[in-house]
Amino acid sequence: MPSDSRVLTAFDFGATRGDGCFDACRVLVTSQGKRVDHFDAHLKRFGESMKALDLPVNLNAWKTLIIDAVNAWDHPGEAVLKMVMTRGPEYGHQQIPAGWVTIVPMPDHSKARNGINVITLNRGYLAAGFKDSPWLLGGVKTTSYAINQAAKREAARRGADDAVFVSAEGCLLEGPTSGLIFAMNDQLWTTPTENTGILRSITVEAILNEAEAGGVAVNRKFITVDHISQQLLEGFWMVSAIRGVVPVLRVDDTEIPHNPGITQMLSEAGGFENGQ
Amino acid sequence: MPSDSRVLTAFDFGATRGDGCFDACRVLVTSQGKRVDHFDAHLKRFGESMKALDLPVNLNAWKTLIIDAVNAWDHPGEAVLKMVMTRGPEYGHQQIPAGWVTIVPMPDHSKARNGINVITLNRGYLAAGFKDSPWLLGGVKTTSYAINQAAKREAARRGADDAVFVSAEGCLLEGPTSGLIFAMNDQLWTTPTENTGILRSITVEAILNEAEAGGVAVNRKFITVDHISQQLLEGFWMVSAIRGVVPVLRVDDTEIPHNPGITQMLSEAGGFENGQ
Repeated sequence: MPSDSRVLTAFDFGATRGDGCFDACRVLVTSQGKRVDHFDAHLKRFGESMKALDLPVNLNAWKTLIIDAVNAWDHPGEAVLKMVMTRGPEYGHQQIPAGWVTIVPMPDHSKARNGINVITLNRGYLAAGFKDSPWLLGGVKTTSYAINQAAKREAARRGADDAVFVSAEGCLLEGPTSGLIFAMNDQLWTTPTENTGILRSITVEAILNEAEAGGVAVNRKFITVDHISQQLLEGFWMVSAIRGVVPVLRVDDTEIPHNPGITQMLSEAGGFENGQ
Repeated sequence: MPSDSRVLTAFDFGATRGDGCFDACRVLVTSQGKRVDHFDAHLKRFGESMKALDLPVNLNAWKTLIIDAVNAWDHPGEAVLKMVMTRGPEYGHQQIPAGWVTIVPMPDHSKARNGINVITLNRGYLAAGFKDSPWLLGGVKTTSYAINQAAKREAARRGADDAVFVSAEGCLLEGPTSGLIFAMNDQLWTTPTENTGILRSITVEAILNEAEAGGVAVNRKFITVDHISQQLLEGFWMVSAIRGVVPVLRVDDTEIPHNPGITQMLSEAGGFENGQ
């Protein structure tokens, strides 16, 4: 249906309470064919989000709907596939969840893929604050992203390209819409995700699994603002299924080294060959 | 228009990112006439939420729209008036915010108004974690309420009627959709709201202002889980514009004293006369 079709009621809990979940992945249409990056992993994570929100889980129906949408998509290049599910209307005879799938051409991320400057922003909580607190929805990809959106606006206001959330103890957590990979001591690092509220990034995991298979040591431990200010980092990348592998050139006032060879290696491991 | 009319597109940031704000107040239709409780204060707070989200603020247009809706409403008894604004569609020629007003008959809250049992739930952050961090949207009534909704489900799962969020230090913060009033040492208490992330409750403020005018001492300092477990509280109420003044009879495993005379006094100060 047309992109300006009205699909949600004014009483939908997704619209009034951010009470829903989503997932997003990349569709690539080239002369060699069409592919959806890590489709099964994104669908599985989408199902885990539904479960965490006590929404009904029917992944076979979603898979059929998504495959139909992808089959109908022929626009060459990269595209963003998004699946969204909400709890449905607050009032009415039955509370039936709402769900939809969209595919749109990807915005141009070529500039970001050459490197960005970021600011750190306090996320207000302790990195281990999510232990035994499932109602905090830590690591669940809900549609309640108002703080993530506000962080991006704050970054723009300060002339930066993106933000990185930092815990009350000074641990780097995640970007508003991306996971983190670091290089330090000739090894790769990413954030732990258990009990931390951090979304498990499928693209980060895919990249680091491939790096580990190639013999690179990978640490899943926090990098702190002290590592940054003491200039201990040898590289820093923000990673998402959509924007790909983005080198960070500066955090607040500290320049970060950039090794384009490692960026190329990480991009290829994530399926973003030749900047795609 | 009918309540099942479709009003939002699949690309609306309100639906995909919880990127919007709302406010809600009570409409009362009786044989004496019609009134909207604290309308100007709710409209003002709605405007403050818009401003915090960098949304355009045009309160005169909203006031006209809301008055039209109230004028068309004749259903006797209590009703819920809700105003919602989102950032509008992510894609399209122009990003025009979406806004709407709904009025529905109020659900029956008479049981809750006789008293409820609640559980405390960790909110994951420090009570002062919002200082100098406007991107955390502390005290802003955004539509990103997924955690609030999950907390209510957790309460129901444990056989309780509602939840109270507690900070990492053990301070009682607020309910998922209500503010807190306590009685201790023959005085009234409520939570401070500055830098704490707590929404400033218009109904709590109205009630406590009236109590202060009547000579009752009011403290705006945190009550902690220790005050509860040491049985120092002389009364506890959860307060919202919609559900009114609700006495809390039990917090986790601790019974809370209930003085119906104080409940009656607070209800009347909030405009909820005779249980209305």
